[in-house]
Amino acid sequence: MADTASDRTTELTHSTLATKALSATLADFKAAAVRISGDAIKTPALPFRQPDRRVFLKAECLQPLGSFKIRAAANALAQAPAAELANGVITASAGNFGQGIAQAAKARGLSVDVYVPDTSAKVKVDALRDMGATVHMVSFADWWQIIMTRQTGTNGFFVHPVAELAVVIGNGTIGLEIAAQVPDVDTVVVPIGGGGMISGIALALRAMGKKVRIIGAEIETSTPLFQAKRAGHPVTVARGATWIDGIGSTGVLDEMWPMLEHLVDEVIVVSHAEAATALRLLARQSHVVAEGAGAVALAAALHPSLAGRTVVPVISGGNIDAATYARILLGEDR
Amino acid sequence: MADTASDRTTELTHSTLATKALSATLADFKAAAVRISGDAIKTPALPFRQPDRRVFLKAECLQPLGSFKIRAAANALAQAPAAELANGVITASAGNFGQGIAQAAKARGLSVDVYVPDTSAKVKVDALRDMGATVHMVSFADWWQIIMTRQTGTNGFFVHPVAELAVVIGNGTIGLEIAAQVPDVDTVVVPIGGGGMISGIALALRAMGKKVRIIGAEIETSTPLFQAKRAGHPVTVARGATWIDGIGSTGVLDEMWPMLEHLVDEVIVVSHAEAATALRLLARQSHVVAEGAGAVALAAALHPSLAGRTVVPVISGGNIDAATYARILLGEDR
Repeated sequence: MADTASDRTTELTHSTLATKALSATLADFKAAAVRISGDAIKTPALPFRQPDRRVFLKAECLQPLGSFKIRAAANALAQAPAAELANGVITASAGNFGQGIAQAAKARGLSVDVYVPDTSAKVKVDALRDMGATVHMVSFADWWQIIMTRQTGTNGFFVHPVAELAVVIGNGTIGLEIAAQVPDVDTVVVPIGGGGMISGIALALRAMGKKVRIIGAEIETSTPLFQAKRAGHPVTVARGATWIDGIGSTGVLDEMWPMLEHLVDEVIVVSHAEAATALRLLARQSHVVAEGAGAVALAAALHPSLAGRTVVPVISGGNIDAATYARILLGEDR
Repeated sequence: MADTASDRTTELTHSTLATKALSATLADFKAAAVRISGDAIKTPALPFRQPDRRVFLKAECLQPLGSFKIRAAANALAQAPAAELANGVITASAGNFGQGIAQAAKARGLSVDVYVPDTSAKVKVDALRDMGATVHMVSFADWWQIIMTRQTGTNGFFVHPVAELAVVIGNGTIGLEIAAQVPDVDTVVVPIGGGGMISGIALALRAMGKKVRIIGAEIETSTPLFQAKRAGHPVTVARGATWIDGIGSTGVLDEMWPMLEHLVDEVIVVSHAEAATALRLLARQSHVVAEGAGAVALAAALHPSLAGRTVVPVISGGNIDAATYARILLGEDR
């Protein structure tokens, strides 16, 4: 139900974002890597023994706050002109990105306002407050308007959680590290949330002149990118019950489609049994705690079609509910 | 019940090992780091947020096979003269060290014989066989004789799991990495098993000219080094029931005492409640799966007496029984 003005704003944002992102240079990604070096770590690419392929886990679950999102959040703030930051920082995310912005703002002595839908889990809202953020609880409809229009009525530097050039470039620093750590990588597998991570990684690898197959990973209960690729445009998809969060929306964002259409070579859809097995392997063989999205990436990397390859699945994060985690570790799949 | 000949052998071994280890140079540790670079990874020093101190986790649980022991095993084999390896490799360990030797031998195309006590868990024996080792099950008494005398009756290059210069030097590579990753480290905390890890790390840091406080960590149910330090010599201690394995023997090995007496500044003893809390923090805040010994190291690093310090606890490994892990994650302490 967006009005005409916000439609136009959104339309402008799409074309601007995709055009700018697709023309990013290696220097842009390298500058981001320097910019975020005080906030994020260079995560290891952990060798993961397999009989029929070489696998290295890009362990973003080891980042501060347990998610790759600190990279993008830090890059957005580090890149902002000082004058624009005078009134502090604003974002609209109750999840890992909101926490990343709050943490990066705190590290820079900036105030931060975070808009969250009033459906957000209390534990996430409390975590934001613990990090010094001013939390604004709004209705989901109002929150979605902010995501579409970037207008909050509060003064400050607004950072969009997905459709933001600094976010895509910040995510691309993962690609730079993969290329340095696994020089002969031929396949990268990335879980599909908003699509900002896979876009950034693909763009960075392309900017480095690396020929790498870019594979998106989705869970069987929600396959927005798989369906969009088949239809040739974003479509609305069903979203079934799952213990896996952070991926599996009801559709690819219009802003992101031009990049995803262009950059993603293939989407592999995995079952809950495969994701659960991968989560257990991550714990027992690699000794990392992954969130569901990370397990989906490993499950896709173990797909029979990738035998013989040198594959890097990106283990996006490690934030998972303790009871769910224990249940899956002990053998359940759903 | 060792006979006079083996007593003499053991006596000779002690003095030789401690003397040689205490005169190791920085070049010895640097050479080991190069030697093991194809077997072990440089583990990250993960920042671990704390309000009153700086903590970096040396995450050895991320090593191949989930333990720091691959470093020592690889160093011992890489350093052995080719002629001595012609008949293959022998060791006496059913645990992480035996697996490390089996893996390092496999990587070099060497045959490996592993002597294990017939009390070993089937899962560990199966893991050794899966790695291509020939497993010899012997009585615990016969196994202990091998540990004391290094005589097995099988031809091949014998590597002792603890009292071996190449093992101590291999462990020291952890110290080199800590110094490079956390240049202002002032305290290192290491769980006490046989004492080979803390000795190697302390010697490497000393060889680098670093002034670092070296703290051993023990669990309340078995405190061999704490008691030995108090008595001024190794003493036999009780060993209570615990979910924490890999540490907590009934006494410090005579071979290791000269090094431990000289190199360890302090021993911190932690409770099961503290260890369980640390295990949960490692999962929830840092997203690594640690074994009990690793949790004990973090628990000691969080001791009130270390406020204001820059502390690196060594998270020794991540091999923990799945059911035990789930139980502690869900809130139990014992």
